[in-house]
Amino acid sequence: MKAARWHGPQDIRVENIEEPKTHPGTVKVKVEWAGICGSDLHEYLGGPIFIPRDNPHPLTNETAPIVMGHEFSGKVVEVDPTVTSFQVGDRVCIEPIYACGKCFSCRRGHYNLCVHLGFHGLSGGGGGFSEFTVVPEYMVHKLPDNMTFEQGALVEPAAVALHAVRQSRLKAGDKVAVFGAGPIGLLVIQAAKLAGASQIFAVEISEQRQAFALSVGAAHVIDPSQTDAVQEIQQVTGGGVDIAFEVTGVPAVLTQAINSTALNGETVIVSIWEKPAEIHPNDLVLGERTVMGILAYRHIFPEVIQLIANKQFKAEELITKKISLDQIVKEGFEALVKQKSQVKIVVQPN
Amino acid sequence: MKAARWHGPQDIRVENIEEPKTHPGTVKVKVEWAGICGSDLHEYLGGPIFIPRDNPHPLTNETAPIVMGHEFSGKVVEVDPTVTSFQVGDRVCIEPIYACGKCFSCRRGHYNLCVHLGFHGLSGGGGGFSEFTVVPEYMVHKLPDNMTFEQGALVEPAAVALHAVRQSRLKAGDKVAVFGAGPIGLLVIQAAKLAGASQIFAVEISEQRQAFALSVGAAHVIDPSQTDAVQEIQQVTGGGVDIAFEVTGVPAVLTQAINSTALNGETVIVSIWEKPAEIHPNDLVLGERTVMGILAYRHIFPEVIQLIANKQFKAEELITKKISLDQIVKEGFEALVKQKSQVKIVVQPN
Repeated sequence: MKAARWHGPQDIRVENIEEPKTHPGTVKVKVEWAGICGSDLHEYLGGPIFIPRDNPHPLTNETAPIVMGHEFSGKVVEVDPTVTSFQVGDRVCIEPIYACGKCFSCRRGHYNLCVHLGFHGLSGGGGGFSEFTVVPEYMVHKLPDNMTFEQGALVEPAAVALHAVRQSRLKAGDKVAVFGAGPIGLLVIQAAKLAGASQIFAVEISEQRQAFALSVGAAHVIDPSQTDAVQEIQQVTGGGVDIAFEVTGVPAVLTQAINSTALNGETVIVSIWEKPAEIHPNDLVLGERTVMGILAYRHIFPEVIQLIANKQFKAEELITKKISLDQIVKEGFEALVKQKSQVKIVVQPN
Repeated sequence: MKAARWHGPQDIRVENIEEPKTHPGTVKVKVEWAGICGSDLHEYLGGPIFIPRDNPHPLTNETAPIVMGHEFSGKVVEVDPTVTSFQVGDRVCIEPIYACGKCFSCRRGHYNLCVHLGFHGLSGGGGGFSEFTVVPEYMVHKLPDNMTFEQGALVEPAAVALHAVRQSRLKAGDKVAVFGAGPIGLLVIQAAKLAGASQIFAVEISEQRQAFALSVGAAHVIDPSQTDAVQEIQQVTGGGVDIAFEVTGVPAVLTQAINSTALNGETVIVSIWEKPAEIHPNDLVLGERTVMGILAYRHIFPEVIQLIANKQFKAEELITKKISLDQIVKEGFEALVKQKSQVKIVVQPN
């Protein structure tokens, strides 16, 4: 079968590999749609970050080359006899977290903080940029009949956004700023709106992404290359937002996010960082502000699926391009690097 | 009357100034004991930080030279006729916060975050390093008969510590690390113990302060010049403390405090900073950790007074030296700079 594998930075190859087989506790999925994620792009441009290159991942026992793709939907085509909760033909999406089940965090149910945390599609074991993939039963969530496979491929990034908002202190009526309106930023805007935010600022350079931000619930867009975002937000709100979400991973933006919040405000870091960032601790102390980080999601896929099925969460609308697996490097990764107008590109491997 | 006034960095003078007069809404206090605080030391060494030098403070309308001293107790010696809640002879301590009463924070009762925040003894209006001082009625708290004036002078720093612990997520049973065991750090250790911390680590270089830390409730002391504090705390606790308090204001220590916490842990910054600090946001993201800042205190003096009166909070025990006002520079400020064995030095102006 065909699969896109990471061999090294800027070296992703679509190649023929052996079709994976089920084993106890797993199901085999024919992939329908798989989204390209910001993390995939980091791995492509400057990885490995999550991808195991030198040492095998402790839970998959694999090293690169590995199949990529961790945001995907598909159909169950084979079920190991030990699995009772799924059957052939089920329409599903995948929650791609591997966790040990035994560590401090796992024992507390915080499997997204597992000491051996891995992702199907980043840490080995297969992935969504592949005609078929075999996943443990606990990763599989059924899709309702009224939900498309494209929507199913958006459940994973939507889960990141909903987890970020749920972990924040956001209460209905709060004012919110979202720094960065890529796919996750746009989903955070929606999750904040859903949670009752009364006024949402999106800080984003790309005009097309600004338009998306307005269409999914932002009240104001700010182009930080033209306007001092902190000053603008402080002035319009009369003292700052209650919650800021940092979704860029750019060091200077972290300080902007912090200073866009009101006294006692909270900044939630949703991005993964390639390097350290300088902050002024007095920005926290003199305003009794908080900064917290969040990672992925836990215990939230069924709710996200319901919200998307209910149309409370726009998912399909973020797709700006659909491509085949053969096109993934040029029309997928390279397009995302070069065209800031792209939001979500989804890949059909079959 | 005699008073110690800040004229400039390393220029504090004991001089004769006019005795202050009461006016509506104020009482006149004869100062008994006044503590020298870390903030005073910052103003002495590298100020002005809070002291208004170039522009008058908006609430006191004063610029330097200003009378210092914001941790003090005394006796009421004169009461303006408009004041009904105090009378001559009352034994009191002072909550030295000036706030406008009108801004975003003040209207929410968060007067410690007032946009015009000032301190009696730092921002003008008089101070505790003075024979007499006149303060607004709202700053005054009565001391119970069983409490000494020395204890009264420790209420202010104890309030900082209790506020820090109350604003944190600390729950009975939690493990705690305190970075820096100066006066505030030692009071934070006590407040954490009082709140039910099951295991407290004190990270401190000075041997005498280490001994103090053990005597007020720390279970372990770590000398960071000898031992990797993060590694030690992670190992002894099997995964980190629930809450770390950063009480040094030293950039490298902030990262240590963050990494001493468990996944989902919280770091509370209690110190004031002279410069920015570098952190790695992934330390927050990959562990879903939180960092928050706290400033001073609000609505907590009566409770602190009760706790000290009950001996639930050791205060007098932190006093390592008692001096007269004339000795304040050489035996006070200079001693604190040179002798890390000093903890709290209190001054008697009368």
